[in-house]
Amino acid sequence: MVDHAQFFHQVPDDVLADMLPLAKKVAVAIGLEDGQYNLLQNNGPMAHQVVPHVHFHIIPKPSPEEGLKIGWPQKQVTPEDLKKTLGRIKEKL
Amino acid sequence: MVDHAQFFHQVPDDVLADMLPLAKKVAVAIGLEDGQYNLLQNNGPMAHQVVPHVHFHIIPKPSPEEGLKIGWPQKQVTPEDLKKTLGRIKEKL
Repeated sequence: MVDHAQFFHQVPDDVLADMLPLAKKVAVAIGLEDGQYNLLQNNGPMAHQVVPHVHFHIIPKPSPEEGLKIGWPQKQVTPEDLKKTLGRIKEKL
Repeated sequence: MVDHAQFFHQVPDDVLADMLPLAKKVAVAIGLEDGQYNLLQNNGPMAHQVVPHVHFHIIPKPSPEEGLKIGWPQKQVTPEDLKKTLGRIKEKL
């Protein structure tokens, strides 16, 4: 059987269950036991997905100048906003 | 039993196996079925890890200005470099 999924949330649970133990093997084989690396999985072209199938990047960060740089603009939200968002998520879980 | 791990590669496989199916439930509950989101897991303070235990960020990308911005400086490498790196990784797998 060949599975294909463009997006993370389309992958069957039994396939997802195998992915991180495999990624761990690769991280150790690359020699990342000292830490300083990122796991990144992108969904959708706006969110930096270039190849349209689910894959994880394991990105070593040997120095501040190398590896993954991130920016994460923060929004101002009120406690009420957060409470509403939490309620919406809880309803669906 | 309480497990604690600062780094991804320290997490036992049976715990790792549960993480992505759970993340998928959360992604769907947040309403990300249309795509445009990132999964990010950081290891080590230099690699943007702020809280010293393993956790995944699920980051919606509703517009180019919001959500995760990434930079990923590229290095010039020769085919021989790549071959050596592949050999080193394969030895350990």
